Amino acid sequence: MGFSENAAIAAIRQELGAAGDSRIEVGIGDDAALWQPSRSDRSAISTDAFVDGVHFQRRVTSLDRIGVRAMHASLSDLAAMGARPRLATIALGVPPDVTLDDVRLLYRGVARVANAFHFAVAGGDCTASPVLSLAVTVLGEVRSSHAKRRSGARIGDTIAVTGALGSSAAGLRALADPHLLDDRLRRSALDAYELARARLPEGRWLAGSTHVRAMMDCSDGLGRDCARMAQSSGLGILLEHIPVAPEMAALAGATGEDAEELALAGGEDYELIVAIATPAFAHLQARFHKRFGERLVAVGRCDAQAGVRWRRSGNTIPVDRCGWDHFEVGETR
Amino acid sequence: MGFSENAAIAAIRQELGAAGDSRIEVGIGDDAALWQPSRSDRSAISTDAFVDGVHFQRRVTSLDRIGVRAMHASLSDLAAMGARPRLATIALGVPPDVTLDDVRLLYRGVARVANAFHFAVAGGDCTASPVLSLAVTVLGEVRSSHAKRRSGARIGDTIAVTGALGSSAAGLRALADPHLLDDRLRRSALDAYELARARLPEGRWLAGSTHVRAMMDCSDGLGRDCARMAQSSGLGILLEHIPVAPEMAALAGATGEDAEELALAGGEDYELIVAIATPAFAHLQARFHKRFGERLVAVGRCDAQAGVRWRRSGNTIPVDRCGWDHFEVGETR
Repeated sequence: MGFSENAAIAAIRQELGAAGDSRIEVGIGDDAALWQPSRSDRSAISTDAFVDGVHFQRRVTSLDRIGVRAMHASLSDLAAMGARPRLATIALGVPPDVTLDDVRLLYRGVARVANAFHFAVAGGDCTASPVLSLAVTVLGEVRSSHAKRRSGARIGDTIAVTGALGSSAAGLRALADPHLLDDRLRRSALDAYELARARLPEGRWLAGSTHVRAMMDCSDGLGRDCARMAQSSGLGILLEHIPVAPEMAALAGATGEDAEELALAGGEDYELIVAIATPAFAHLQARFHKRFGERLVAVGRCDAQAGVRWRRSGNTIPVDRCGWDHFEVGETR
Repeated sequence: MGFSENAAIAAIRQELGAAGDSRIEVGIGDDAALWQPSRSDRSAISTDAFVDGVHFQRRVTSLDRIGVRAMHASLSDLAAMGARPRLATIALGVPPDVTLDDVRLLYRGVARVANAFHFAVAGGDCTASPVLSLAVTVLGEVRSSHAKRRSGARIGDTIAVTGALGSSAAGLRALADPHLLDDRLRRSALDAYELARARLPEGRWLAGSTHVRAMMDCSDGLGRDCARMAQSSGLGILLEHIPVAPEMAALAGATGEDAEELALAGGEDYELIVAIATPAFAHLQARFHKRFGERLVAVGRCDAQAGVRWRRSGNTIPVDRCGWDHFEVGETR
């Protein structure tokens, strides 16, 4: 590795361009970045780590896509609070075989997302490491009365998601086996996995409704994330419908697997899981469709039983250990 | 590795105790942490990465000390802006041989620092990784008129540091060779390296003075960091006195090396480098001593020449490539 930290910072600043500066009084190049927070809003912060071989595979995914994906995965946490992003910082770990051009390409992806959502990359760190890794911190702002937690769901609420599930998991599978899907579905599955989009406008819009009682993102799979919302809210969730993305439906058709089970377990979709007061659901769904051209899909309902259950073909089965966890024994992702 | 992300989060919350919550409306366990920023102050943010084998050696330093050191190294950036810390987030990369007890020990160190400086650890991430790594983001607040940048130094200003230099570098050397120092100095050098203290109260106090024109921390060595301040401020710095910590003086005595050169180059002291209007220096120094019981040490002066130079025994030599850089070819730290 033949470049200095100063050279890396210069290259990063160049790639970020305007994204390094907007509305930030002191940005990259001082000890800390400085800005004037909103006087009326709450600030929200979230940090996520992305490690080569765990969260992405540099071997198969280009560095600009890795940058795009890391940003969206991080922003998804702000979307889930109903916040709009204001700035981000990135701690980059660089192994010996990563060149300065690689760093530039990675930040080209980062800058694309920052420019699209009008926030600044205000700082970070760049250090030698045995493995390529990014730790992304995003800071956003949200009106206090709009901020949505996981814990606000009530018995009787409808649980909905902002889109069909499983396309990202199908993309991950398609990376490993290119023959599982036809070209068109393979491309869209790969895009879903590599360029997963944070539901920022949808999150802000939903957060503005008093009928939305709880919200979180669906990054670890619908089953696991519903279990978290249920636990935080002190209730149970009965799932009745799993909306399967066409990529996952085709993949399951090809392999003979159960598409709904895969969609329930598959993570990294970054759709939002929303608990909505049931009397208001149909109206909110119609307004959501008018605004975003997409459907809020009801997947179940909050009840007083413990845990998450799935009613399917007349049977109700407990949903546990769906989704995945970086630390499960033998789990490599 | 036999523990889940949920188990890690539970253990972390337990270790953090009150440090996880204070003044934070939504903390660990939701998608993002949420708080009410000061209505009058600026917010400041900084992110630093710490990688085993690069910034610390797990082989020789206990995990609680690694936690303490990572927090102080990060907080030093807030100290350099004159900010007080409000919250932190941590992205933790955990290799297979790190146990849940190890994670607890690490966060015990983190919590000690958070409790001492009254800020919250409001969130983070915990993921599998081939190497133990922490990316620490600290967020602080500072009155706009008090925030000090690197770029404010003026020609004629006195450059001062908040303490003698080189004890941390001596500690690093003493780790590699236990026979360099006697027991007492070895222990204090190791403490300086492993528990380096961010100059938070000193930074806030200095930031309150209009005679302080620029401030930064001295994490990469006085020579290199003065070069950054000089470049940011568009001037040069002539160094005339290098205050050497007793640990480094003893080490240089034992090895026959040049103590001042080592102190100039050695990083991770986390003293503050301050540019002060020269007419006010003596008075500020006296007040600083009265307040903190320690001396502000004048090390040089800003002038109109380019770069950083060191006047020593009648000769003036350019100071370049002092201090260190993670990315230098062949550099392993």
